[in-house]
Amino acid sequence: MERLPGFRDFYPEPLPHADVGSADARQFIFQKWRDVARRYNFREYDGPPLEPLELFTTKSGDEIVGQLYNFTDKGSRAVALRPEMTPTLARMAAAHERRFKKPIKWFAVPQLFRYERQQRGRLREHFQFNADILGETGPAADAELIALLIDALRSFGLTARDFVVRLSSRNAWHEFYEGRRSKSGGRADHAHEYNFFQTIDKLERAPPEESDKKLDALGFSMAEVSQFIESGKPTAELETILQNLAARGLSDFVKVDYHVVRGLAYYTGAVFEAFDARGEFRALAGGGRYDNLVKLISGGKVDLPALGFGMGDVVLLELLRARRLLPRFDSATDVFVLIEDEGLRPQSLRLVQDLRTAGYAVEYPFTATRPDKQFKRAQELNATRTARLENADYVRIRDLKTRQEIVAGVADAANHLK
Amino acid sequence: MERLPGFRDFYPEPLPHADVGSADARQFIFQKWRDVARRYNFREYDGPPLEPLELFTTKSGDEIVGQLYNFTDKGSRAVALRPEMTPTLARMAAAHERRFKKPIKWFAVPQLFRYERQQRGRLREHFQFNADILGETGPAADAELIALLIDALRSFGLTARDFVVRLSSRNAWHEFYEGRRSKSGGRADHAHEYNFFQTIDKLERAPPEESDKKLDALGFSMAEVSQFIESGKPTAELETILQNLAARGLSDFVKVDYHVVRGLAYYTGAVFEAFDARGEFRALAGGGRYDNLVKLISGGKVDLPALGFGMGDVVLLELLRARRLLPRFDSATDVFVLIEDEGLRPQSLRLVQDLRTAGYAVEYPFTATRPDKQFKRAQELNATRTARLENADYVRIRDLKTRQEIVAGVADAANHLK
Repeated sequence: MERLPGFRDFYPEPLPHADVGSADARQFIFQKWRDVARRYNFREYDGPPLEPLELFTTKSGDEIVGQLYNFTDKGSRAVALRPEMTPTLARMAAAHERRFKKPIKWFAVPQLFRYERQQRGRLREHFQFNADILGETGPAADAELIALLIDALRSFGLTARDFVVRLSSRNAWHEFYEGRRSKSGGRADHAHEYNFFQTIDKLERAPPEESDKKLDALGFSMAEVSQFIESGKPTAELETILQNLAARGLSDFVKVDYHVVRGLAYYTGAVFEAFDARGEFRALAGGGRYDNLVKLISGGKVDLPALGFGMGDVVLLELLRARRLLPRFDSATDVFVLIEDEGLRPQSLRLVQDLRTAGYAVEYPFTATRPDKQFKRAQELNATRTARLENADYVRIRDLKTRQEIVAGVADAANHLK
Repeated sequence: MERLPGFRDFYPEPLPHADVGSADARQFIFQKWRDVARRYNFREYDGPPLEPLELFTTKSGDEIVGQLYNFTDKGSRAVALRPEMTPTLARMAAAHERRFKKPIKWFAVPQLFRYERQQRGRLREHFQFNADILGETGPAADAELIALLIDALRSFGLTARDFVVRLSSRNAWHEFYEGRRSKSGGRADHAHEYNFFQTIDKLERAPPEESDKKLDALGFSMAEVSQFIESGKPTAELETILQNLAARGLSDFVKVDYHVVRGLAYYTGAVFEAFDARGEFRALAGGGRYDNLVKLISGGKVDLPALGFGMGDVVLLELLRARRLLPRFDSATDVFVLIEDEGLRPQSLRLVQDLRTAGYAVEYPFTATRPDKQFKRAQELNATRTARLENADYVRIRDLKTRQEIVAGVADAANHLK
């Protein structure tokens, strides 16, 4: 029986096959994410992986349904596996908004799902580091969030040579749009502006003729759009964010780049995306300000400015592999207890228990096993030490790296491992 | 908009409402589970939360579908949110069986799902600590697994006064069944034996008359069943397991109790359940040996003896709350950087950055804020210390517990926090 297409099995390393996920690498990434969030004083939250379909269509419109893993449950509810975390966050924050001091700084590490019928072979799930700040309108919050993004990537050993955060502004693009539109006497409606943003968002990936045609149809010219992007002049808001990041010593990691606009309809201010510096991979992370979403999700009841980003595990893992920044994962066995005299098995089990209670990762043979096989197993497990009872009272501890041996009293064994 | 019934939102503490889950308590539990698994040298794995429906019906028969969160996906596949981890484990182990040295010791912390139409208000998801050993037939593996279960519960501060592992044997019950059945000339088929096990499993929860009637219909008497349970004589296999646990010093945590038989059809040897000692809660954990399952799931291709247990987060959390064994969770802010002179904001941001880089959890005001409000915020966040720049070169660090203050050079601030 096979797993479903687009889903990953996560095995302990060494991996049995190139085509499976690594549970160790996943846990390594999750721990780094959680640690940097802690240093930035973000608190963890989570919601259900399954939500009412309406939560996602309210935010993104009915067209999102084509990309969702949605179905009707046994209670006739239209539900969907979450494709992103922001609607859940907005729902949760709005539900108990008055109980939280502002600014709210929260993060989550959700598994997210999508179902696109055409793209077989592409993953249908991934994990994401989601960090959001709610209740703060000023650009200091944008800078704090971008600093967190930068430090999240740096915590893996990535440097300014490896990645860059491209900073842009929906406000700047909105002004551009409004200015040109009114001059040309073009239509002014949300769908039109959204289509314009979508076209800008795809500029770098789409064939130039296609973008040219689309912009033309929307009443804009490629020339004026290119000129605006190339000018790269930061807005006052972006300037404040850049100065804040400069004060932190993080200037090298960020640059203004108006190619970034983010395709999603709900962004309202600064937007940004992190890319590997060589441009070999898809975006590492993306986010921005979405001041109207909590109001929308809460049906107008709660109005909270907000901003956030998501960083996926898949592209990050590809980059860390390419830059050789993943540690070697192995069983991390601290002590392999050799049982060569079966008469000493009960005392050996007690030793195993005591060493584990003292915090060590301990392995031993379940059944009578030839000494050479036991030693081989200890080596396979990459054990740091072996411990073998000489008799009921004394244990011989051997360091497998230095080959040094000591003999210690059994009751004292744990102290000799430090 | 509301979350779906039976699902939990997990908020950071202090919780905004009694009716929501605690992300902090959840993470606390997960960390304890992962730490004890590490000490026992179990390796982490995970599979998809969504699996082919067939994976679960192959193991448990079509009647399981009534309890599953199942649906047909957009690719017309019959799929289900996993109700348990064992079928996924069996699938994963079988897929690459030859690549793993035996015994395989693996654990996972999956979220599991079920959908029972009748029981509204009951949870439809929970998390479970799943630990399994594959490739070892002897009772030493059963003892290792039960020791892990005991130490998992002990790691939360629970003692032999708080919980007990009730150890039983499918083999003993099978012998009982075969012996009585052949004497009485009863039918011998799997469904009949399964119904018998189900009735034994429910003895303690069902009304005596009902059990009596059911046993009678199956060709057994309550008297002989009660006598067998009360005798409590360990089989040779159970005796070996008990001696192994005694050698580890864990005798106080386990007792033979033939009330336990486990309702599921696939158990084949020792079975066990952990309960709170006062019998106030549902089972904390349950498991046993299932030597035929990997063969069944792999369509006969891979034959691996196996055993495992699952420990849920919901009952465990109830017990830890009742025994007051949960720590107080708060924001764990190490340093609140006060910015009283806005002229020093850039230097203060640099200090924030440096302290975070040094590993501290740091908070500060995003915007110009009255000093008393800043201090109040530091107290709300339960910050250990405040740090305030005297000027560009010196920082005043105040311990909010001892109220001691020191003044240090800015570059040296992190060293003064140790």
